Amino acid sequence: MKTLSDYLQAFRNGELTKSQILEKIAASSIVDLSHTRLDMQRRARTGQGEVIFGQSKTTAQILEIADELRARGENVLATRLSQEAIAALQKNFPEARASEQARLVSIGENPPVSPKSFIAIVSAGTSDLSVAEEARLSAEFFGSRVKTFYDCGVAGLHRLTARIEEIRAAKAIVAVAGMEGALASVVAGLVKTPVIAVPTSVGYGASFGGLAALLAMMNSCANGVSVVNIDNGFGAGYNAHLINSL
Amino acid sequence: MKTLSDYLQAFRNGELTKSQILEKIAASSIVDLSHTRLDMQRRARTGQGEVIFGQSKTTAQILEIADELRARGENVLATRLSQEAIAALQKNFPEARASEQARLVSIGENPPVSPKSFIAIVSAGTSDLSVAEEARLSAEFFGSRVKTFYDCGVAGLHRLTARIEEIRAAKAIVAVAGMEGALASVVAGLVKTPVIAVPTSVGYGASFGGLAALLAMMNSCANGVSVVNIDNGFGAGYNAHLINSL
Amino acid sequence: MKTLSDYLQAFRNGELTKSQILEKIAASSIVDLSHTRLDMQRRARTGQGEVIFGQSKTTAQILEIADELRARGENVLATRLSQEAIAALQKNFPEARASEQARLVSIGENPPVSPKSFIAIVSAGTSDLSVAEEARLSAEFFGSRVKTFYDCGVAGLHRLTARIEEIRAAKAIVAVAGMEGALASVVAGLVKTPVIAVPTSVGYGASFGGLAALLAMMNSCANGVSVVNIDNGFGAGYNAHLINSL
Amino acid sequence: MKTLSDYLQAFRNGELTKSQILEKIAASSIVDLSHTRLDMQRRARTGQGEVIFGQSKTTAQILEIADELRARGENVLATRLSQEAIAALQKNFPEARASEQARLVSIGENPPVSPKSFIAIVSAGTSDLSVAEEARLSAEFFGSRVKTFYDCGVAGLHRLTARIEEIRAAKAIVAVAGMEGALASVVAGLVKTPVIAVPTSVGYGASFGGLAALLAMMNSCANGVSVVNIDNGFGAGYNAHLINSL
Amino acid sequence: MKTLSDYLQAFRNGELTKSQILEKIAASSIVDLSHTRLDMQRRARTGQGEVIFGQSKTTAQILEIADELRARGENVLATRLSQEAIAALQKNFPEARASEQARLVSIGENPPVSPKSFIAIVSAGTSDLSVAEEARLSAEFFGSRVKTFYDCGVAGLHRLTARIEEIRAAKAIVAVAGMEGALASVVAGLVKTPVIAVPTSVGYGASFGGLAALLAMMNSCANGVSVVNIDNGFGAGYNAHLINSL
Amino acid sequence: MKTLSDYLQAFRNGELTKSQILEKIAASSIVDLSHTRLDMQRRARTGQGEVIFGQSKTTAQILEIADELRARGENVLATRLSQEAIAALQKNFPEARASEQARLVSIGENPPVSPKSFIAIVSAGTSDLSVAEEARLSAEFFGSRVKTFYDCGVAGLHRLTARIEEIRAAKAIVAVAGMEGALASVVAGLVKTPVIAVPTSVGYGASFGGLAALLAMMNSCANGVSVVNIDNGFGAGYNAHLINSL
Amino acid sequence: MKTLSDYLQAFRNGELTKSQILEKIAASSIVDLSHTRLDMQRRARTGQGEVIFGQSKTTAQILEIADELRARGENVLATRLSQEAIAALQKNFPEARASEQARLVSIGENPPVSPKSFIAIVSAGTSDLSVAEEARLSAEFFGSRVKTFYDCGVAGLHRLTARIEEIRAAKAIVAVAGMEGALASVVAGLVKTPVIAVPTSVGYGASFGGLAALLAMMNSCANGVSVVNIDNGFGAGYNAHLINSL
Amino acid sequence: MKTLSDYLQAFRNGELTKSQILEKIAASSIVDLSHTRLDMQRRARTGQGEVIFGQSKTTAQILEIADELRARGENVLATRLSQEAIAALQKNFPEARASEQARLVSIGENPPVSPKSFIAIVSAGTSDLSVAEEARLSAEFFGSRVKTFYDCGVAGLHRLTARIEEIRAAKAIVAVAGMEGALASVVAGLVKTPVIAVPTSVGYGASFGGLAALLAMMNSCANGVSVVNIDNGFGAGYNAHLINSL
Repeated sequence: MKTLSDYLQAFRNGELTKSQILEKIAASSIVDLSHTRLDMQRRARTGQGEVIFGQSKTTAQILEIADELRARGENVLATRLSQEAIAALQKNFPEARASEQARLVSIGENPPVSPKSFIAIVSAGTSDLSVAEEARLSAEFFGSRVKTFYDCGVAGLHRLTARIEEIRAAKAIVAVAGMEGALASVVAGLVKTPVIAVPTSVGYGASFGGLAALLAMMNSCANGVSVVNIDNGFGAGYNAHLINSL
Repeated sequence: MKTLSDYLQAFRNGELTKSQILEKIAASSIVDLSHTRLDMQRRARTGQGEVIFGQSKTTAQILEIADELRARGENVLATRLSQEAIAALQKNFPEARASEQARLVSIGENPPVSPKSFIAIVSAGTSDLSVAEEARLSAEFFGSRVKTFYDCGVAGLHRLTARIEEIRAAKAIVAVAGMEGALASVVAGLVKTPVIAVPTSVGYGASFGGLAALLAMMNSCANGVSVVNIDNGFGAGYNAHLINSL
Repeated sequence: MKTLSDYLQAFRNGELTKSQILEKIAASSIVDLSHTRLDMQRRARTGQGEVIFGQSKTTAQILEIADELRARGENVLATRLSQEAIAALQKNFPEARASEQARLVSIGENPPVSPKSFIAIVSAGTSDLSVAEEARLSAEFFGSRVKTFYDCGVAGLHRLTARIEEIRAAKAIVAVAGMEGALASVVAGLVKTPVIAVPTSVGYGASFGGLAALLAMMNSCANGVSVVNIDNGFGAGYNAHLINSL
Repeated sequence: MKTLSDYLQAFRNGELTKSQILEKIAASSIVDLSHTRLDMQRRARTGQGEVIFGQSKTTAQILEIADELRARGENVLATRLSQEAIAALQKNFPEARASEQARLVSIGENPPVSPKSFIAIVSAGTSDLSVAEEARLSAEFFGSRVKTFYDCGVAGLHRLTARIEEIRAAKAIVAVAGMEGALASVVAGLVKTPVIAVPTSVGYGASFGGLAALLAMMNSCANGVSVVNIDNGFGAGYNAHLINSL
Repeated sequence: MKTLSDYLQAFRNGELTKSQILEKIAASSIVDLSHTRLDMQRRARTGQGEVIFGQSKTTAQILEIADELRARGENVLATRLSQEAIAALQKNFPEARASEQARLVSIGENPPVSPKSFIAIVSAGTSDLSVAEEARLSAEFFGSRVKTFYDCGVAGLHRLTARIEEIRAAKAIVAVAGMEGALASVVAGLVKTPVIAVPTSVGYGASFGGLAALLAMMNSCANGVSVVNIDNGFGAGYNAHLINSL
Repeated sequence: MKTLSDYLQAFRNGELTKSQILEKIAASSIVDLSHTRLDMQRRARTGQGEVIFGQSKTTAQILEIADELRARGENVLATRLSQEAIAALQKNFPEARASEQARLVSIGENPPVSPKSFIAIVSAGTSDLSVAEEARLSAEFFGSRVKTFYDCGVAGLHRLTARIEEIRAAKAIVAVAGMEGALASVVAGLVKTPVIAVPTSVGYGASFGGLAALLAMMNSCANGVSVVNIDNGFGAGYNAHLINSL
Repeated sequence: MKTLSDYLQAFRNGELTKSQILEKIAASSIVDLSHTRLDMQRRARTGQGEVIFGQSKTTAQILEIADELRARGENVLATRLSQEAIAALQKNFPEARASEQARLVSIGENPPVSPKSFIAIVSAGTSDLSVAEEARLSAEFFGSRVKTFYDCGVAGLHRLTARIEEIRAAKAIVAVAGMEGALASVVAGLVKTPVIAVPTSVGYGASFGGLAALLAMMNSCANGVSVVNIDNGFGAGYNAHLINSL
Repeated sequence: MKTLSDYLQAFRNGELTKSQILEKIAASSIVDLSHTRLDMQRRARTGQGEVIFGQSKTTAQILEIADELRARGENVLATRLSQEAIAALQKNFPEARASEQARLVSIGENPPVSPKSFIAIVSAGTSDLSVAEEARLSAEFFGSRVKTFYDCGVAGLHRLTARIEEIRAAKAIVAVAGMEGALASVVAGLVKTPVIAVPTSVGYGASFGGLAALLAMMNSCANGVSVVNIDNGFGAGYNAHLINSL
């Protein structure tokens, strides 16, 4: 099998066209597991390696991807896992750290971002904890320091205002709330920091699985709020980490 | 033409059946203007006379209804009026009081409810004023005293908290907000008073004409909130007045 | 550990800034159970203590919160409980009163509101009973007297009109209905009392989980209706109690 | 040009295949106006000729269709007309009867259905009149007798119950209502007659252009209700006429 | 206990007011089972007795209602039953006829409507059978004769056109279809008979549980279609029976 | 029993009317299995025989249909099968080929379309595989050659661009993607071939079961995209095969 | 200014890196008009040049783009034009052909595709004409031959079946329909050809601007249907042309 | 009038309670213009002063707010302005800079953020320009440097990839796109920078005023995307500036 160097030489010699060499280069960065084609360029391109989105994958597929990533020296973060998949990963990778609440497993540690800056994760109610924890563990996996401010819903504003000075010190804020999602607006009105809002599916009836909170956060009357998908704790943690890394 | 007394006598005499007398009674309470059949029993039944909902009525129809009500000694409240209808009512009824901002005209005064108690109307932004004013003028028409707390949006919490003691003294609270509608939750978390929430159509994009605020208010994490239709300042003022009258 | 008095003295002495003393005060009113931060100020602020929203909480969390509240002399109301959580609460608190139909447990009794006034709970069909019962038991927990008028759906108007005089005597009315939710409009057209409407998820097809009833109640052609979330019996009972307490 | 008889003979002679003769037959029943292909078979097939749906047609197109239909001895009903189209039809067809309120023109008279039976059209409010009138005039065009019961909204039930005996005598009932559309359920609970419900776009905010009324009518707790499109007075009149003709 | 006659006499004697006697009369027609208040007037008022809507009722409640109705000489129709409820009804009422496919039980027979007229039930696919059967058995319970035309979806038009003459002979037509619901339009374009359309929840993805078919049927370009709720076979059968009984 | 030939003769003799002979012809092409009426004309009319849509059919019904089709020499494709139905078909038809991932069984082979042309199936992620496989196996059943390009999501564009020359060589392209469905636009911007887009229900929260992807594909800024139902791999494979057969 | 050849030489000489040369190549194919960057590679890549989407562009911008394209020898198709933009294009480009009905202008002629094959455009009603014409003129611009079959709505099936043999002869079919959109299913059930369905916004009430037709077409029970955006005549014409060109 | 210092002294003296002094402090930071209560604390709290949201405010109100802010030395940014309001601001404030395309006026300059870092604003099409410009001018007003990359829609990927290295150098990226909104996913898959996505209302039919793009961006398969409201260029510019300022 020819190596990438062989191909590059052939190109300089005029034996390969430009589009041929480009395809060779791109192809070399893909690991094909038949069901999944791992994108080994992602770290170079986006600063982070592939993350395993566990939903709708079989446990066997998840294990195979994790194996391949570990074999290539990558750390592994897998989200939205079934209990079965969590158990399998813990068995196969003794160094794995798992959270059943956040439905997440991480293997390996990324180098820490500057220890001075941190991310604040503010959540509204006990029921939002699993999403908030997914955000926290994701951000920590990528190397950010996190402080949590849980159960700060706006029905009891002093729970939030009592800690607002600490929250203001963060470099990025994640606001997690279901129901009417008012937390994002209230927090953003009190700080100078970008707020990543995560609507959760906590609620019933006219919450329509988180739609009420999503729309509310989209329409925040306070400046500085941007929104990720319903229950997307991972996405919020990732975004906050990107900001915290600046 | 026979009077209701005649009919009642005929019934006692067995000349009319029960269902016949019932229809006679009901019919006597309806004034038929061909396009509209006024419900003259409404005051006895619900405590308030008919209110004219101006939308989709012609100016001529509105004037005719107002004439008929005045002729029978009723006070008149007309809402959702066009500028044309407002002008016509002002011309025909010199004693009318009109608000272009609230698109509303009232004629005559109802006796005041006890002067001690009052309704607090809290609104989020300048753009919500027309709805808030519809609520205020409606409640005042029915005889309630109102204090307004405008432009208290949650993006600047201190504008609200600076006046919360005054708001707490109200017997009923109306909270008017568009965009994410968080005001209702924040107010309800700070008071012991029932909060009537009015979502407004203020906003754009994913506010979907007030739907975002409506859903948020429906899902309030604070207890004590109930909700009326988008932009329904009249309904909020009416509900608040019912509570204030207790 | 310093007490709040110590801190207050330090403030008068100028040893603490204003924002420092404010945070101390607020913090002293929060009981931190790691998953939940109880808001012990809520009674002072809103007239009622914390209520446990059971959905998405584990039985262990619910028990811990109930323990903490009881330890501080609070009565407990827990809603949206699983059968497991009901059983656990009944076992741990022999004085608890539970309703499987309403998925609710209460512990302790609040002092009764004036025995003369009462709340009327009107419901449309047999299938709406669990929501109506949640409203009844919630209002009773807070100290209100309740009379129920069940199975009064508009398909048989005389079931409602036969009892309308009793309903008119109430200080607040809760109207519970699924399907097309017409009950709220019909009741409100017959009374002088504020009507709290509760749409239920009873129905199928184009009821869209209660959305049809919610929209109908929002658009009531009768005055005096305000609406709470789908299936939110607790919220309706709470609102009605606030009005009944005036 | 060959006639249909020629073609039929050719078929019996074996000169045309079956599918060829079928296409000839079908084609002979279509009048091609380039923009519109009139279906001259419709009366034979469905009992009624073509009706002109005026919306999105130019006035010139509408006039051309009306001319063609009249030339062939058909009566004409045109709905959803602009003011311009109404005026043009009135000018070109002096015998035309027009209603600006119902946005409708009819030309010619269909033979009356049995004079004993009639259709009852019940409507909720003044604002629903234009739709109710479209239903009335459509049913009358097809030959049915109609009695109207306007402004019978459920906010004042006695306006309806006062006339229920008359309504019960109808062979078909049309119920027209916007806002929460409760009228359909209340009427259907009181009669033995099929009820055709027409939601109207009357309302604002969460009526969502008639969706609230449509969903409510779809979910009627009373038996015997079927529903046509929002503001579709014509469709209701047509359906009621079909039933009235049985 | 006083009888209704006693009360009527008291009224003629002037011992009871009109509103008192009215309530006595209405109350006498209601059987209170605590969870359900049976409406014994319904047959007189609407031509049919109460039907048991089985969804969200317990088997015990359903049995109790059936017992009460049978004890008063009423026939019983129960719909949307669980398998458990079907079995229990069959055990308690040996004369019951049950259909698991249609999730329905009937007890007793209503007198047949004129044997000449019949209802045509046309359905689109095999998957729509349970709804079509609910329509058939409901109509038959009330006394109508039914002919079925199943699996006539528009993807193979000749399955429908081959039988259209038979369908045209019906006095009322029920059209049952999921997916895109085109069957209703195609049938209505071919007949002179009112078509009751039933959207079903058959489909997936963008059928949104029957919403696609419901909207399509609402917007039928053919005249003579009215629509009942998604999967509401009972409602269609009932409406068709009302028409067939004329 | 008379044969179709008898009827045709009778028609030429004038013993049957045209509409009578037409019904005879149509009826002869329908196989009635009581629950299902097989359309044996479909191959002649549309080029393909009936396909069994397994969802909401019982295993017994599916087997009976497959038996009937096989008895008449038809190949069989059955989609959206339960595991039970797959097993039953495999047991009864040893020659059947099944895919649990695609929930599909095929029996018999259609003659291959020209071996030179092929369909490209491009999919976004591992989670979209079952839909992509349904498309592939369906197209292959009808006789098309297929090349797959799986896991080419736009988050790693080079996975797609590395293979774009191969994809360009296809005669039709199927693009399968959930979440934001951007794959369809990106592919269509790079090729001259019609792209059949299949939104999948892969995702969570605001993907609303595939609605987000469906809307995105509908609004593609690139030309040449048309869309089938959410998760409709079969439909995409069928459409692509029609194009590939040209 | 250096030419692309200069850059390529520099790359062979090793003076430019690979990514530098790639950017040079890509950049050379873009014409920057400040508001718009024309993609001059598009013809090579997708087989067709840029099309001007006129909506939300000023007339000045549209003219500038058209000038630039003409200057480079490209033919021009501009869609969704205002009347003002149509007039300006006609004035500036005397050779332009314009359709006010289709809101479209074309300049220049593409070489015709094989004269034997053609596209059939079938539409449901007069009101759908503007969308159907947009499809026709777009396909003709690209060089396809088109036959139109207008006003073939399913309310009069024979208008469609009379011409089905002609339609079957097409290589691709476009089906245009608003309201319930049933035309697509009925056509697809009768042909062996791919059907591109275009929902139109024709209708009112519960058509929700074309959503009803879109959902219906998505859920077609007939195989072979794929769907483009509401009112997207251009897209349908383009897709049909791609297929017709095979 | 007493000053804040007077009040603070009174508090130290014990003449004011704590809650009294708190209200005095909060009140001193609010400028009451009757229609609007300016939040003069906002800069201290959130780092930026008040921004005027012009929609639903009268020109007179906007001018009065701008006057007040300028009088207090604040710079002014006003968004969503009518042409009338833009002209009035330009007349009253000669130093104002206005953009009709972005519907925005700024008065005064904020000190620049570090000149090295910049924000990249990438937009999909010409029609998205007004939103992109609102983002650019907002970010520049707050002091950020911006580079724009307009008309980079994914239908012509090379327009984007040609400039990706420049985009990668940004500290924050704003991605503006309507229609299917795929741009956000494609950009985020190629960079290490947080991407603020702005859906625009550009499109028609099933774009539902930007909802399609909003949902697509919410469901991005690429990491690092967060979303603001439809057409909310200001919000994106503000968020990007917050990140750029870190």
